[in-house]
Amino acid sequence: MKNEISIGLLGMGTVGSGVATILQQHQDDLRHKLGVPVTIKKVLVKDLNKERLSSLDPVVFTTDIHEILDDSSLDIIVEVMGGIEGAKSAIESALKAGKGVVTANKDVMAQYGHELLKLADEQKCDLFYEASVAGGIPIIRTLEDGLASDRITSLMGIVNGTTNFILTKMKTDHMSYEAALAEATRLGYAEADPSADVDGLDAARKMVILSSLAFSTEVHLEDVLVRGMKEIGDGDLEIAAEFGYTMKMVGSSKKDEDGIEVSVEPVLMANSHPLASVNNEFNAVYIHGDAVGETMLYGPGAGSLPTATSVVSDIIAACRNLLLEVNGKRVHSAQHERVIKPESRRYAKYFHRLLVNDEVGVLAKITATYSNHGASLQSVIQRPAEKAGQAELVLLTHRISRQQHLDVINELAGTASVISHYRIEGEETA
Amino acid sequence: MKNEISIGLLGMGTVGSGVATILQQHQDDLRHKLGVPVTIKKVLVKDLNKERLSSLDPVVFTTDIHEILDDSSLDIIVEVMGGIEGAKSAIESALKAGKGVVTANKDVMAQYGHELLKLADEQKCDLFYEASVAGGIPIIRTLEDGLASDRITSLMGIVNGTTNFILTKMKTDHMSYEAALAEATRLGYAEADPSADVDGLDAARKMVILSSLAFSTEVHLEDVLVRGMKEIGDGDLEIAAEFGYTMKMVGSSKKDEDGIEVSVEPVLMANSHPLASVNNEFNAVYIHGDAVGETMLYGPGAGSLPTATSVVSDIIAACRNLLLEVNGKRVHSAQHERVIKPESRRYAKYFHRLLVNDEVGVLAKITATYSNHGASLQSVIQRPAEKAGQAELVLLTHRISRQQHLDVINELAGTASVISHYRIEGEETA
Repeated sequence: MKNEISIGLLGMGTVGSGVATILQQHQDDLRHKLGVPVTIKKVLVKDLNKERLSSLDPVVFTTDIHEILDDSSLDIIVEVMGGIEGAKSAIESALKAGKGVVTANKDVMAQYGHELLKLADEQKCDLFYEASVAGGIPIIRTLEDGLASDRITSLMGIVNGTTNFILTKMKTDHMSYEAALAEATRLGYAEADPSADVDGLDAARKMVILSSLAFSTEVHLEDVLVRGMKEIGDGDLEIAAEFGYTMKMVGSSKKDEDGIEVSVEPVLMANSHPLASVNNEFNAVYIHGDAVGETMLYGPGAGSLPTATSVVSDIIAACRNLLLEVNGKRVHSAQHERVIKPESRRYAKYFHRLLVNDEVGVLAKITATYSNHGASLQSVIQRPAEKAGQAELVLLTHRISRQQHLDVINELAGTASVISHYRIEGEETA
Repeated sequence: MKNEISIGLLGMGTVGSGVATILQQHQDDLRHKLGVPVTIKKVLVKDLNKERLSSLDPVVFTTDIHEILDDSSLDIIVEVMGGIEGAKSAIESALKAGKGVVTANKDVMAQYGHELLKLADEQKCDLFYEASVAGGIPIIRTLEDGLASDRITSLMGIVNGTTNFILTKMKTDHMSYEAALAEATRLGYAEADPSADVDGLDAARKMVILSSLAFSTEVHLEDVLVRGMKEIGDGDLEIAAEFGYTMKMVGSSKKDEDGIEVSVEPVLMANSHPLASVNNEFNAVYIHGDAVGETMLYGPGAGSLPTATSVVSDIIAACRNLLLEVNGKRVHSAQHERVIKPESRRYAKYFHRLLVNDEVGVLAKITATYSNHGASLQSVIQRPAEKAGQAELVLLTHRISRQQHLDVINELAGTASVISHYRIEGEETA
């Protein structure tokens, strides 16, 4: 049995520094848990001269990735450098050299996860990626182990802290989208270019990772239906609130005998649903399983130490496997074929907000459009519009297919102007 | 490597039937995950003639526990029979015979957990007990693995579904305690004798298990300060609501350099805290870690299939370890000495509700009592009392020690009648 585990750390940014801090501060706990010390032997940095708070010996730093990947004394490579192609090739090299890998890289795992996990299986190496989704929340582990015995039927997640922070500020502090985004940027929750967050791409990548695992099938990024936050109309949050809903950017993934459907979009979440009260930069993943019913995991979605906690938990698991010589024993191959549901079989309730000319017969015309497409309505509310001679209509449908919803929206365009439309979630169990 | 895993099931009640159902329905998934079938070979029942919904071959049933414990062909014993001494001795026998054990028995684990885990370590056997706390929530696993790299500073749990259901009904449907308890009994959430639930003993046992694990120390049942639901005064929920609090039965466990404190009692939880919105029979465990910050796990706390899900997840973990021949490799020994904090070092904010004679100088006398004990007040509100000539006072303290709180309550008895008093939680991060 080894008497020490040596780590090569690729990247010393926010997460990397957190990993170094936790590994140093918790040496006693680690030694108690594993019986041997865990030591960072080499660290890839961009600039050797940058001052660092870490108490690591300066000799461990290098700017040459090969000095780490080619070092046969390293047992585990921790990839927290970010980016896609460079990180992917580093992970590949490490696995091919027989090392365990821990990564926090959702971009790589969303795009190359299946390929890399297959390689890990072939190489009999561990590839752990808990930190790639919902930083401090042990969701990957829960899907792999905690709910291993259940059949998951749906999974909904608030998996992007930036957009959740913005929506919370818009709702509770009545900020505009722009002001809330500026606040998120000021606090460091949003990046200089926030488009990956607000357009839903970041969440979509996380949903690819979670859906693949939850349903044991391949899911590709292009399978995810994505609508960004910019689709949210003025006043929609307030009207949603009047109807008992909270607007949330929700990644949703469902499975039944027809296949799976994965989406990321602003939805109206019933206030009684636990996801509706997940606020600020927090993340949460709500799972529905055949046997367990409803479960939810809640916690920080990002940040140096929370994310580093997940990375270090993965490092501990990888160390334990190495010490027991049972690394690379997970089965990662997909159990089920990838079957994506057509729009005509994705059912939900919808919320439509329309602006119409306040004329005789307009309501009849509008409701006829719904019945033409077999879409039945749960309620129709007429509200005064800002401009005289116009009226605002809010229509809530019963469960209809997404195809029906799209057809209705399309046909309505002749009679009304569609201000906004959302899926409704959280009213009934999946 | 084994080509099959054989299970002996002790008990075929609510949870046992769920375990049998899941194992049968998920054979394909299990075979995909483990590579070998998992089969229930023997089942201990009380009555062979009772009709069962299970599709198990009738020959597997026996009323003789020794037929199971002495069967060397069984790999894993699943204890879901309940009770304390009988179950403990069955677990002991199984471990001594070198079998893996999965139990859902919180009573045994709270009382004999340290002893049994030590035996498991010595015997190099697995002893898993995920289902013993918060049925469908993978909390044990999260503490052992997901947050393995963190130092947990506090843990608060709604870990008893019966009392949470009663409190929810009292709050949202304005039911009396008696009516809510009757409803819980009718729905099967409360047992015929609900005292273990409403008096807090059930939650206290779960807190023993969680605290031992979270803090890697021994915690005994007598270390837990327990106050039952019966201490809740008439109208307290409503007054709490006026002040922005929700009454919850909370198991709380905190650690700092002075030691640990563990309690189960009705507390006033700030409405903004995620635990305040955990309703009905649901359970939730909120964890604060040095690095991760706040996390919460939410889900069903009981029920046949949710609890069975946890049992089967444990069975899968035990099977995997057996197949890899790495069973019994966990370190279960406590890392830290058991140091329980004295009352004088347990700090919290308190809520005191008093009835006083509405006389000149009474408020001065009351507030003097607080300052005599160095207890500073955050607010004092006088309210009309039902009876003329009397007044009701609600006093919220700043953070004071439990000793100060007790001393004040004690001294107040001369001047006022203390209607109720509660700890306040959830206003600041632990």
